[in-house]
Amino acid sequence: MFSLTVVDHIMVAHSFRGEEFGPAQRLHGATFVVEAEFRAERLDHLNLLVDIGLAKDELRKCLAPMDYRNLDEEAVFAGQNTTTEYLCQHIHGALAAACKDGRLGPHGPNVAAIKVLLRESHIAWAAFEGPL
Amino acid sequence: MFSLTVVDHIMVAHSFRGEEFGPAQRLHGATFVVEAEFRAERLDHLNLLVDIGLAKDELRKCLAPMDYRNLDEEAVFAGQNTTTEYLCQHIHGALAAACKDGRLGPHGPNVAAIKVLLRESHIAWAAFEGPL
Amino acid sequence: MFSLTVVDHIMVAHSFRGEEFGPAQRLHGATFVVEAEFRAERLDHLNLLVDIGLAKDELRKCLAPMDYRNLDEEAVFAGQNTTTEYLCQHIHGALAAACKDGRLGPHGPNVAAIKVLLRESHIAWAAFEGPL
Amino acid sequence: MFSLTVVDHIMVAHSFRGEEFGPAQRLHGATFVVEAEFRAERLDHLNLLVDIGLAKDELRKCLAPMDYRNLDEEAVFAGQNTTTEYLCQHIHGALAAACKDGRLGPHGPNVAAIKVLLRESHIAWAAFEGPL
Amino acid sequence: MFSLTVVDHIMVAHSFRGEEFGPAQRLHGATFVVEAEFRAERLDHLNLLVDIGLAKDELRKCLAPMDYRNLDEEAVFAGQNTTTEYLCQHIHGALAAACKDGRLGPHGPNVAAIKVLLRESHIAWAAFEGPL
Amino acid sequence: MFSLTVVDHIMVAHSFRGEEFGPAQRLHGATFVVEAEFRAERLDHLNLLVDIGLAKDELRKCLAPMDYRNLDEEAVFAGQNTTTEYLCQHIHGALAAACKDGRLGPHGPNVAAIKVLLRESHIAWAAFEGPL
Repeated sequence: MFSLTVVDHIMVAHSFRGEEFGPAQRLHGATFVVEAEFRAERLDHLNLLVDIGLAKDELRKCLAPMDYRNLDEEAVFAGQNTTTEYLCQHIHGALAAACKDGRLGPHGPNVAAIKVLLRESHIAWAAFEGPL
Repeated sequence: MFSLTVVDHIMVAHSFRGEEFGPAQRLHGATFVVEAEFRAERLDHLNLLVDIGLAKDELRKCLAPMDYRNLDEEAVFAGQNTTTEYLCQHIHGALAAACKDGRLGPHGPNVAAIKVLLRESHIAWAAFEGPL
Repeated sequence: MFSLTVVDHIMVAHSFRGEEFGPAQRLHGATFVVEAEFRAERLDHLNLLVDIGLAKDELRKCLAPMDYRNLDEEAVFAGQNTTTEYLCQHIHGALAAACKDGRLGPHGPNVAAIKVLLRESHIAWAAFEGPL
Repeated sequence: MFSLTVVDHIMVAHSFRGEEFGPAQRLHGATFVVEAEFRAERLDHLNLLVDIGLAKDELRKCLAPMDYRNLDEEAVFAGQNTTTEYLCQHIHGALAAACKDGRLGPHGPNVAAIKVLLRESHIAWAAFEGPL
Repeated sequence: MFSLTVVDHIMVAHSFRGEEFGPAQRLHGATFVVEAEFRAERLDHLNLLVDIGLAKDELRKCLAPMDYRNLDEEAVFAGQNTTTEYLCQHIHGALAAACKDGRLGPHGPNVAAIKVLLRESHIAWAAFEGPL
Repeated sequence: MFSLTVVDHIMVAHSFRGEEFGPAQRLHGATFVVEAEFRAERLDHLNLLVDIGLAKDELRKCLAPMDYRNLDEEAVFAGQNTTTEYLCQHIHGALAAACKDGRLGPHGPNVAAIKVLLRESHIAWAAFEGPL
């Protein structure tokens, strides 16, 4: 199995509902360094998994609606705690749609699975992986 | 599959028996930066995999009996070479027990598997992963 | 010249005033990984620059009033853009006071200068350094 | 499942054929930081997965024919685009052969799979994993 | 003293003349991860050292003529070994000119010095620092 | 001012005397990732600060007498707490001697100062810098 990973980041504000969150119930924020890993069983005739330029562009497009925003006020997250693990799944969905829609080029259909990992600090991160 | 990872570290002395170890047969030491990754198929109603605060606390409790110690003199390791890969499995067992015993809170039973990774330097690390 | 550095982090929300900031004028957030470097010309009779345990504790105390908060609503930052470079100077002031007040132990007076570096992402950081 | 990872690096020149590569069609270069991960279900009686010294030596031997070279002129890569993902598979093959041939010592047959990851920058990397 | 650092990278081919370079006399390549640190004694009324967006843009413009190229064939480097330390000074000159020419905005004149650091691998890097 | 940095590491056991050290009074250990930075005002005619190969070799020679050892039993450290900051100064002395003795080649006399930084974990490090 091959994989190709590209990295970007977002800087967001948010708060959590539920006493389990302790001080994180207050409005606070995070830099999420986002690693998007595309997996495929085979490379194409050029020895590419996906076009790395398109992968970076699509990752940016998936992240742009969140970047420099307060996630508590974004309609797409209404009623959801935007935990790190939840955001991984959300971004996974957006990248999977990009692959299916051909936005990663003709190599998109080669992608068998995507793993999205968000580092919230040097000592904590979360991930979601799944098929397209 | 979701995962959540927290990081801590220990600073230990130890030595190895077996000529394969060369100079590492002498009493020496290591900083092990420990990454504990908890995996689960689903998040709870708050969008949590496990409570990250409890995860950090339990990891610390699992590491405390080793920290700032000479592992050669710890009864729990009698007759064992405390190689990096072996310590990964040892810590995995302690964290799996914490999950089963409810010490990671009600989210513990969601955990399907744990991966423990120990970085012994910038150029070498080991890991053990397995179900609870 | 000797130096000793300890690391901690905070997760904050904030916004900036001034069109130069573009999208960062919106309420957003950041994880700041904080490196506090203490410098001294000499070590003490135990070969210590400052007690690393006290250094970590005081850094945490300096960061606690900011952690998991919206800096826009903190009185101490009223009328200020809490840019990364500004926060470095703010934390420097708090750590310098801790040294002068003896909160870093008898080694505090050995400290000639402090450098505070805040990483806001994997591709951008700022710092402030100055004497006590 | 246990794993043990060792790290080395190479500094190579190369170019790519195919308009998809854009400016990377020009002769350029890369530092590839190479992570070789060996996986096994069991440790030996010394609690070793493979001898870490032999693992480092064999990784170096696999990398030496590429290091400080222009890959466009190496016969082994004739007709191939030496993309990061392709090089991962190439190195995987060389390490798998080393395991099978006993060059990683008696522990070699314990190895179930190898993952080779090449970091081409701080924001992009690729990997190949597969059985021996 | 304040500082602000932004990061980018280039992927280049080159070779060195001089037997001291050993195998690096052959055409090879490198990924250089470039850290550009701008230093100033004071922040402006917005608490900015320099506009981080402009800093990233100007760093990219300074690096673009080198990126994805064989430095041996670039007229600007004729007769020079493009060692890591030399390239640091070269990029320093380009960034200093950008500051003086006002391309980093009205904050440019605040900059007292620039440090350019190039990481050629995880175990080697070089830097050049100097006034504008 | 130019600088060139090379990296190596050691794995040592030791203990500290003095109640300030708390649990670190017990025999424990550390991986020290060692960064040796050589500084010079000028490069030579080949655009080299010092020969990077010789720098790596001499750093290894300076570290070898400590590696895989219990520092409490080394005569050179008798009566000393081998704190991270102390070890930085110790290694600085060894590297400075290597420069003066011509072991870093004809470029050695160009070196104006050396900084030695030891990372003891991902959240703590120390350094010593001084002239030859």
